[in-house]
Amino acid sequence: MISQETIVALASPSGAGAIAVIRLSGKDALTIAEQVFQSVSGKSISKQKTHTIHLGHIVDEGKVFDQVLLSIFKNPHSYTGEDVIEISCHGSTYIQQQIIQLLLRKGCRMAQAGEFTLRAFLNGKLDLSQAEAVADLISSDNEASHQIAMQQMRGGFSNEIAKLREELLNFASLIELELDFAEEDVEFADRTQFSDLLNRIEFVLKRLIDSFAVGNVIKNGIPVAIVGEPNVGKSTLLNALLNEERAIVSEIAGTTRDTIEDELVIGGIGFRFIDTAGIRDTKDVVESIGIKKTFEKIEQAQVVMYLVDSVQCSVIRLESLNIEIGRIKNQFPLKPIIVVLNKVDKLSPTELTAIVNQLTTYNIQPITISAKNKEGIEDLKNQLMSFVNTGALRNNETIVTNTRHYDSLLKALEEIQKVKFGLQSNLSSDLMAIDIKQALYYFGEITGEVTNDELLGNIFANFCIGK
Amino acid sequence: MISQETIVALASPSGAGAIAVIRLSGKDALTIAEQVFQSVSGKSISKQKTHTIHLGHIVDEGKVFDQVLLSIFKNPHSYTGEDVIEISCHGSTYIQQQIIQLLLRKGCRMAQAGEFTLRAFLNGKLDLSQAEAVADLISSDNEASHQIAMQQMRGGFSNEIAKLREELLNFASLIELELDFAEEDVEFADRTQFSDLLNRIEFVLKRLIDSFAVGNVIKNGIPVAIVGEPNVGKSTLLNALLNEERAIVSEIAGTTRDTIEDELVIGGIGFRFIDTAGIRDTKDVVESIGIKKTFEKIEQAQVVMYLVDSVQCSVIRLESLNIEIGRIKNQFPLKPIIVVLNKVDKLSPTELTAIVNQLTTYNIQPITISAKNKEGIEDLKNQLMSFVNTGALRNNETIVTNTRHYDSLLKALEEIQKVKFGLQSNLSSDLMAIDIKQALYYFGEITGEVTNDELLGNIFANFCIGK
Repeated sequence: MISQETIVALASPSGAGAIAVIRLSGKDALTIAEQVFQSVSGKSISKQKTHTIHLGHIVDEGKVFDQVLLSIFKNPHSYTGEDVIEISCHGSTYIQQQIIQLLLRKGCRMAQAGEFTLRAFLNGKLDLSQAEAVADLISSDNEASHQIAMQQMRGGFSNEIAKLREELLNFASLIELELDFAEEDVEFADRTQFSDLLNRIEFVLKRLIDSFAVGNVIKNGIPVAIVGEPNVGKSTLLNALLNEERAIVSEIAGTTRDTIEDELVIGGIGFRFIDTAGIRDTKDVVESIGIKKTFEKIEQAQVVMYLVDSVQCSVIRLESLNIEIGRIKNQFPLKPIIVVLNKVDKLSPTELTAIVNQLTTYNIQPITISAKNKEGIEDLKNQLMSFVNTGALRNNETIVTNTRHYDSLLKALEEIQKVKFGLQSNLSSDLMAIDIKQALYYFGEITGEVTNDELLGNIFANFCIGK
Repeated sequence: MISQETIVALASPSGAGAIAVIRLSGKDALTIAEQVFQSVSGKSISKQKTHTIHLGHIVDEGKVFDQVLLSIFKNPHSYTGEDVIEISCHGSTYIQQQIIQLLLRKGCRMAQAGEFTLRAFLNGKLDLSQAEAVADLISSDNEASHQIAMQQMRGGFSNEIAKLREELLNFASLIELELDFAEEDVEFADRTQFSDLLNRIEFVLKRLIDSFAVGNVIKNGIPVAIVGEPNVGKSTLLNALLNEERAIVSEIAGTTRDTIEDELVIGGIGFRFIDTAGIRDTKDVVESIGIKKTFEKIEQAQVVMYLVDSVQCSVIRLESLNIEIGRIKNQFPLKPIIVVLNKVDKLSPTELTAIVNQLTTYNIQPITISAKNKEGIEDLKNQLMSFVNTGALRNNETIVTNTRHYDSLLKALEEIQKVKFGLQSNLSSDLMAIDIKQALYYFGEITGEVTNDELLGNIFANFCIGK
């Protein structure tokens, strides 16, 4: 299954920079590198130790392409488990292209997406869930998703699954043994211990499956619908929320990233803010369409943030606000709604108290802020964070973020519950063995003991080239 | 002058990729790295040899940030000449930021643009013109500019200047010696040999100064004004010219670059195509403004390409074409004009011959092409290339591309010519010594023997961060 070809790709981000890194892996990596690299020391790189760096030039037909540093990683002490060469060249895109083209001419082929990590998996350097975590790690853009990917890459999740699998395998072999002695009707597998184990496995599987809800939130963020008319201060609020994060980013020149105004990281969790129009009662057809759209967007969101300009809060406006919120609650009874009073800096304390009191009679507890003056922002953040169950995160528990793992866990749980039922109803060993095998199969799918080309193709196609 | 602080920056291009490289340089680079890096082998990195690579984790307060490879370059065997650490981490922008922030907390400061190379210069690893070539190399985007930057970085230009400077210095000291024995009226410096040397220096300086014309073309490209009405096939032609180049780029996934439609590399030289409207004779005010703009653009260009739809070439149209080209020639008598007949695939051979014959009577030799069928494109490329004197490039001669060097060379030449004149008119040694010193000063400016903070500031401010 492992391709014998030597692959090459740009490993550093595309574009120009101070340096770029080109990576080769495969059995000819050293000999191909040797053909294009002239060490300043004059020594042949094939005779150098693993994990050493050499200054020299990339040369072809007497023409010097670049002065580079060449790093040697000898099989099996490399990322892929094969011979690996990393060339650290000057970071012009022209030089990157020229060196990669030269290496292609010398017998490398372009690596496919994720092929380095695929080889690492096939060579036993990583299990499948660890390999998947590599892609998650590279795409992680906040503390929580980074922490989970790190934990998964370092084998936290795999270990938990492997431990369950091993215990189950133990019992499975005892049950299989009983089949060999079927006519003697012996029981090698202690049924009470087995029942305990199944309960334990069920408990762990359920916890892992439950963790997917928070895992999914961490990986994909929490959609928040902002309901509010124009000029209530939506973008000022988003900027105020973003403020902290931005300061950090701009501190580090050279690592700018695109500002996506409606995607913020608060307390390590991504929040996606979905802008909507208001939902005032209306007979106007055009406005009705707007309201329909607002409801559609609220449906997609997990949290509703109702933003109000407090300066506009007449008694009548507050009454109609109560009706509007009632409409949302009717439609989405379980969706949390945060009412945010903005521009409170423009009110006198008496005015503010009057508004809050009236809202209290409607059973609405507003959060009062001044987005412009960045007041009350912390309260709002805390309120948003209260919808995220980050307990598991704080307790460093394993969290499932991957849909593939989630599916396999669900299927494994189903099989374990069948086995449990079988045990309770004194099912014969041979029938129980089938369900156990099936559960083991789903465990193996997660870590990659059980796999096939199509599955691997799907997983690694989502990787970037060069990883 | 050398700052003692340890600096840090992202060295790989900004953005996400498989891996990213973070670089530290300074006397505390090893001890700072030691605080955040836990080697898998458990060994302390400060005890490791230079040019070795170590697998481990970036850890702060028990929290694992990433699994990384750490490369050690010990002073003076590094790019900057100081202790240098390179951390090769997973390429998410979040991880890049977190690691850089951690290093800042541990006592590094952010490197300024070009500060690594500035330190390399100050520590004598590179002279100034070599340091400048590093920036040129990173921004090189075609074969010619890459070749010149490579040559300059490897010291070709510096050596040429240094040799002249040394010989001149030799004579200067003999002349100085004469001053000490002024009353005895001796001549230590052989005037004939000195005159020969001055001639040689003058010759080399003139050659270098002349090379700036081609150097400038190579660095900044050749502006070509395309004169032609809509629908004569401008964009098809640009695509046909671009075709080859594009194929190369798209071959290498992960190294995509923005396609700038009007900037093409032909034969290793950049051509910038400037689109203009036609210049037909007209009484219409609006059109007159258009013609004025066309002439302004032609003025900026080095070459004019007059593109004509051959299907539209009636006898009368050709006559008016002759008049239009005459107008350009009147205005810009020295500017080369290429007349390109497009869409010749739509003509019969007889029709084409008739058109070419009529143009020949006007002393116009057109290039006939079919941009759509990519016919005649090579002829056109050759014609464009004929305007570039790449002789110096082919002969591997030193080419000056840097305005700063060009200025210094001009000033040095002026001083050398003064010395020559002094020698011919039997000027006293003390006066001649002043001019020689001044010439030496300008030589020193190029390679950086003579320098000041402002000059260095200007040069390195143009570098990218991390280099």
